[in-house]
Amino acid sequence: MSKLAEFRQFREKMNERILAADNLEIRRFFALDSRVYENGALDTRTKELLGLVASMVLRCDDCITYHVVRCMEEGITDAEMFEAFSVGLVVGGSIVIPHLRRAVATVDELRAENPGT
Amino acid sequence: MSKLAEFRQFREKMNERILAADNLEIRRFFALDSRVYENGALDTRTKELLGLVASMVLRCDDCITYHVVRCMEEGITDAEMFEAFSVGLVVGGSIVIPHLRRAVATVDELRAENPGT
Amino acid sequence: MSKLAEFRQFREKMNERILAADNLEIRRFFALDSRVYENGALDTRTKELLGLVASMVLRCDDCITYHVVRCMEEGITDAEMFEAFSVGLVVGGSIVIPHLRRAVATVDELRAENPGT
Amino acid sequence: MSKLAEFRQFREKMNERILAADNLEIRRFFALDSRVYENGALDTRTKELLGLVASMVLRCDDCITYHVVRCMEEGITDAEMFEAFSVGLVVGGSIVIPHLRRAVATVDELRAENPGT
Amino acid sequence: MSKLAEFRQFREKMNERILAADNLEIRRFFALDSRVYENGALDTRTKELLGLVASMVLRCDDCITYHVVRCMEEGITDAEMFEAFSVGLVVGGSIVIPHLRRAVATVDELRAENPGT
Amino acid sequence: MSKLAEFRQFREKMNERILAADNLEIRRFFALDSRVYENGALDTRTKELLGLVASMVLRCDDCITYHVVRCMEEGITDAEMFEAFSVGLVVGGSIVIPHLRRAVATVDELRAENPGT
Repeated sequence: MSKLAEFRQFREKMNERILAADNLEIRRFFALDSRVYENGALDTRTKELLGLVASMVLRCDDCITYHVVRCMEEGITDAEMFEAFSVGLVVGGSIVIPHLRRAVATVDELRAENPGT
Repeated sequence: MSKLAEFRQFREKMNERILAADNLEIRRFFALDSRVYENGALDTRTKELLGLVASMVLRCDDCITYHVVRCMEEGITDAEMFEAFSVGLVVGGSIVIPHLRRAVATVDELRAENPGT
Repeated sequence: MSKLAEFRQFREKMNERILAADNLEIRRFFALDSRVYENGALDTRTKELLGLVASMVLRCDDCITYHVVRCMEEGITDAEMFEAFSVGLVVGGSIVIPHLRRAVATVDELRAENPGT
Repeated sequence: MSKLAEFRQFREKMNERILAADNLEIRRFFALDSRVYENGALDTRTKELLGLVASMVLRCDDCITYHVVRCMEEGITDAEMFEAFSVGLVVGGSIVIPHLRRAVATVDELRAENPGT
Repeated sequence: MSKLAEFRQFREKMNERILAADNLEIRRFFALDSRVYENGALDTRTKELLGLVASMVLRCDDCITYHVVRCMEEGITDAEMFEAFSVGLVVGGSIVIPHLRRAVATVDELRAENPGT
Repeated sequence: MSKLAEFRQFREKMNERILAADNLEIRRFFALDSRVYENGALDTRTKELLGLVASMVLRCDDCITYHVVRCMEEGITDAEMFEAFSVGLVVGGSIVIPHLRRAVATVDELRAENPGT
């Protein structure tokens, strides 16, 4: 199984497990975490880019993978994605580079999965 | 002098001081830090929002102030700004709240300076 | 006005300002940020200590001040507070020390305000 | 070998290796890192929860695993653990979620190992 | 009183206050925090540069001020200091710039205090 | 393949991929990230130690691996390396320990590869 497939499977399974637990605050946080990327004054496309760059500078691989997937679903081009990466890199510094490498590998894996995009 | 005026004055004075020093790498970094927000595949407006949210989750008040100023110069509305803040808040957590308070105070100070915006 | 009084005034004023803005996600986040410290399986006293140590290792002075105030309202003794600080210091390292200094100054200011505590 | 078993084995082996090296400061730091969780004004149970939430907001999987194990040895219930997680999640934001997923998986793995707990 | 004088006075006063408190772990940490910069396989000069760059990338102004002072006591030249700054800037990214501005202001204030250095 | 070999292979492949992409800012950042460690007022040896400790306190395993490799190429001894680690540990706190374990494992793997060093 590819790393991406593993990530998706584990993410789905554990989200279900966590939301089934009897903790209202965590469930509310998860709901809020979805709503915040919905169309509003800013569109989902822009918000997903915001989520992507925030994830890069905070250096969270799973979060980056999630937002890369979502950005591509929203039709972000490679040129746009790399410019978002460049902002993350300059703001966050060279410490971001290992995450950038994995982010680009994810972009490539997703383009290979969906040759038409 | 307001906090915002103090920030501007100190920023300008020290940037001059730093760029006058004999260190090529620092000068190149500063140049790169300007270029990365220029129009490209993504427009400056979007990139300034990316810089703003990255600064919020990394919790740097001066960086937030700088990008709030730039966002308003780019015509970002209050509704758009608050949605960018909401993404930063959900990604970064309650630890971001003190910076959100100061960011909103900066927005209000800038609107008061330029009533037409 | 003392730093503590300034913090309280600015905090109250800006919370009002932010909650009055037309952004539902931010309001929901603020509500969640209150609920999460309420009595449950863990009592408020323990949760405020958790909030305090989390704020220390993330090095947010305003958050530390807020939780120090709340811990003292919950009857946390100085000996307990310093042990919480010691966990924060060992987990977070010497980079936490400047925040520890300000946290202890806040404890002392609060004890001076309320000699009976 | 499960991830948890791998973590334990590597942790034990490398701690031995590091403490055998001729560096007094590192040995002292390791000693301090044990002492700080011992019973005092706050009990070990509370201190382990502090260590757990500090590890969550700083997003260190190994540290979270270690403190989850210790919390369960101290008799922390699932309801208490999830409330500690909820504080970590609200303080640290959505960037904490991937670590929360792995933390809950560790809780489940440990409960499966020790059905009586 | 200059910011630097204020920093020194507050630092000294609070260190005394903290070390007088009845908490052995905190005292041991403070002792370790001194020892770690003493001459050994690496000399104090190099270790102070390590402390400075670590403080920059973690973005702690008080820590940066402390290590800038110590570096200048160890005879670090401006050219060396700026190269250390350049490493911190590239590793940590543009988020470091506000701290770099304040670090350079501290260097200038110290050179003005001690024209011979 | 060892973890170290995997790291090297992935790093080389992805750097090539990233530098081949049509994004000037990212290429410039990568160039700057090389130059900043070159001999100047500070020598490469010292700068690599700075990069190592910065990577430790920011807790980036790939960055630590890279700088450990470079430090050993520059002839840094184990005693010097452990003192650099001790500074990183005291500045960054116990949250650094899992990265310290992996860093020491990398040192041991490299010494085994090159018994003469």
